[in-house]
Amino acid sequence: MLTNTCAVKSANPSLTTVKLRPPYLLFVGDECDAVYAKTALGIVQWRRELVAGQLRLHSKAIDLGVPDLSIADAASAGIGSLVIGVAPVGGNIPESWLAVIEDAVKAGLDIVSGLHAKMTDHASLVAAARKSGACLIDVRSPPPRLPVGSGAKRSGKRILMVGTDCAVGKKYSALALEQAMCKAAINATFRATGQTGIMIAGTGIPIDSAVSDFVSGAAELVSPTNDSDHWDVIEGQGSLFHPGYAAVSLGLLHGSQPDAIVMCHDATRTHVAGWPEYSLPTVPECIRLNLHLARRTNPETRCVGVSVNSSGLSESQRKNYLHQLQAETNLPCVDPILDGCDSIVEELMR
Amino acid sequence: MLTNTCAVKSANPSLTTVKLRPPYLLFVGDECDAVYAKTALGIVQWRRELVAGQLRLHSKAIDLGVPDLSIADAASAGIGSLVIGVAPVGGNIPESWLAVIEDAVKAGLDIVSGLHAKMTDHASLVAAARKSGACLIDVRSPPPRLPVGSGAKRSGKRILMVGTDCAVGKKYSALALEQAMCKAAINATFRATGQTGIMIAGTGIPIDSAVSDFVSGAAELVSPTNDSDHWDVIEGQGSLFHPGYAAVSLGLLHGSQPDAIVMCHDATRTHVAGWPEYSLPTVPECIRLNLHLARRTNPETRCVGVSVNSSGLSESQRKNYLHQLQAETNLPCVDPILDGCDSIVEELMR
Repeated sequence: MLTNTCAVKSANPSLTTVKLRPPYLLFVGDECDAVYAKTALGIVQWRRELVAGQLRLHSKAIDLGVPDLSIADAASAGIGSLVIGVAPVGGNIPESWLAVIEDAVKAGLDIVSGLHAKMTDHASLVAAARKSGACLIDVRSPPPRLPVGSGAKRSGKRILMVGTDCAVGKKYSALALEQAMCKAAINATFRATGQTGIMIAGTGIPIDSAVSDFVSGAAELVSPTNDSDHWDVIEGQGSLFHPGYAAVSLGLLHGSQPDAIVMCHDATRTHVAGWPEYSLPTVPECIRLNLHLARRTNPETRCVGVSVNSSGLSESQRKNYLHQLQAETNLPCVDPILDGCDSIVEELMR
Repeated sequence: MLTNTCAVKSANPSLTTVKLRPPYLLFVGDECDAVYAKTALGIVQWRRELVAGQLRLHSKAIDLGVPDLSIADAASAGIGSLVIGVAPVGGNIPESWLAVIEDAVKAGLDIVSGLHAKMTDHASLVAAARKSGACLIDVRSPPPRLPVGSGAKRSGKRILMVGTDCAVGKKYSALALEQAMCKAAINATFRATGQTGIMIAGTGIPIDSAVSDFVSGAAELVSPTNDSDHWDVIEGQGSLFHPGYAAVSLGLLHGSQPDAIVMCHDATRTHVAGWPEYSLPTVPECIRLNLHLARRTNPETRCVGVSVNSSGLSESQRKNYLHQLQAETNLPCVDPILDGCDSIVEELMR
């Protein structure tokens, strides 16, 4: 149930992350609401260079601003994957999509999906994939073999997004930070640990789907040995203070061995989202615990900034909030959408 | 891959632990070395009342001190399960065992195994189980559906074994503590979180095999709502300081919501077993971190004792060691094998 089905190609026998085959044809289906096309929009925003075109089932569907391509166009242009970039309500695959997806499989394109419904539950898709050699890739599923975390020091540097809660902007912060680091001529790579991040990066492991014995080992695979001046910018997951998901966060923290962390927070969040009995920790308290636990596998780790989703505040509230947080933490505090991440990069390089 | 195969009976649709069907016939095979029969010996030691007999393939095999029964005897006596109580080197099922196990399946006995090799990889066993209605139960596999941890307070009380490392006696400590509590007329139940513990208790969840998103939810299932004066005595796993397995330990800690913890330690261990780069924390340091993190889901938790494996020390060293540890922690410090757990029970009831 946990392994991806590559109908013909045999799985890579070595330990590896999930890997996607670019360039992408982004499947928009008949989706007219941008809210449900966040994945496709995110891929275009952050990895335009991986995107060859879009496939829309009618003219009123969301336009991602990239060329419309048919399956036939895509096949002759050597496109690697049809990426399902929209999330239909309920997570199932609408009947109207199936024939198109099957055509893509027949044309040899891999299908990349993060939907709840499995492509491999559709016998017609499995049969077509077996024939064409295409892969049906579920980015919610970890690769088939994961190692136990070794705890061994590896070369290269790592910065991990951590948070006071789930859904506070860890993926966005990592991508914005990668962009700011590259702009500053720092050798940096975004590393994905969740399904949307994997679709953007083209590789990664959905850490929260790893069996708990292997979660820190999975995190080690996500940010492997690298050049000594290279930085992995690692997408975070959950929170050490989360009553449901803290195990995921600790495994990711230990396996990432971060040289630096960035604390991500939503300025108006007071309780764990969906767990109203659980107050959020303060930002300084959350930084302290993350540093304390991170130092088990990297004694040199430090916090270099706070990334705040301030969309719930007015401009004057926002200024006051960030000013006060900066005084409390003695760290650069930014809303990455409004302020960018340059001040965090400066702190990191200090 | 993660679900148990019950060839005919449909799985319980509600959320549940792995559940075994007593009484047991303990399968000893041709094993002559007690080291490899630890599971069978543990079941007889701690749950003699669940054991109807033993099945030995020749007369020189380990004698557990319970009646020898044939499969035919067992079937007519209404025995529920053939429990594989020995671990052959390599973890595979020897050819010489297969015919006997198949006979048991044909006679309607469930087969309970914690071996690396899966019973369900043997087509003959699966076919026989389908016909007889017997289950092939792998105690390494969690039940098919696990919830996300709710963090909701539930009635009843809980005491969790925690540790400075893996393999420091958490299961033994929990069983010895359960025994001491019952002797003191306290309503107490051992709760299993690992494969051998599950075979002893007849129920439980192998926590380290749970997908990381569900590890605290699995821990909640292991110690469900109970009478307000009832104590669950929960087997611990790993250590918060373990570079590979800390995620498992944190999920178990959060989901158990322990009112009390017992710190388990091996007196001569200086490094994480198998991770020579990682020093063990001191006992007080390990208590502090466990209490700090446990208080996220149970603010009232406290440590009530230290359970020490002192088998590596001489008698005078042992006395000094426990005396000094008691002074450092201000808690009862015992070797449960030599001293019993009465002083920990006293501290718990104070």
